[in-house]
Amino acid sequence: MKARIIVTPKKAVVDPQGKTVQNALEHMGYQGVKAVHVGKYLEIELESTDRETARRQLEEAAHKFLSNPVIEDYKLEIVD
Amino acid sequence: MKARIIVTPKKAVVDPQGKTVQNALEHMGYQGVKAVHVGKYLEIELESTDRETARRQLEEAAHKFLSNPVIEDYKLEIVD
Repeated sequence: MKARIIVTPKKAVVDPQGKTVQNALEHMGYQGVKAVHVGKYLEIELESTDRETARRQLEEAAHKFLSNPVIEDYKLEIVD
Repeated sequence: MKARIIVTPKKAVVDPQGKTVQNALEHMGYQGVKAVHVGKYLEIELESTDRETARRQLEEAAHKFLSNPVIEDYKLEIVD
């Protein structure tokens, strides 16, 4: 089983990395970029096939130490 | 229109960040983690509504400077 976690800065938080990429895209000639948000992507391969337990454990891990809940949001997705 | 780019290390490339997260998960008591891959997540908001042009331009940008094609793969997705 595989899980994906995407961690992004909260909308209200300044995202300097995203701003940098946005400026870079403009300088490279790509017009019409309204905003860029940069986050982390984690792909976790699990031995277990119990989706419910996996989701519960990963929700906990994502909240506790894979993201910083003060400034970041995360999205957890269990795939196949 | 919105686009998502996920940049991950190629499978053959050592992923020390992923290994660190895997070890951390094990130390925190989460058993059965086979592997962790850590990558970058980019969400790009575009003014244009022309999916084909956007895809072509972002493919180029992703290949040229949002990823390092020698050691990284990327996946581009145009959403709504």
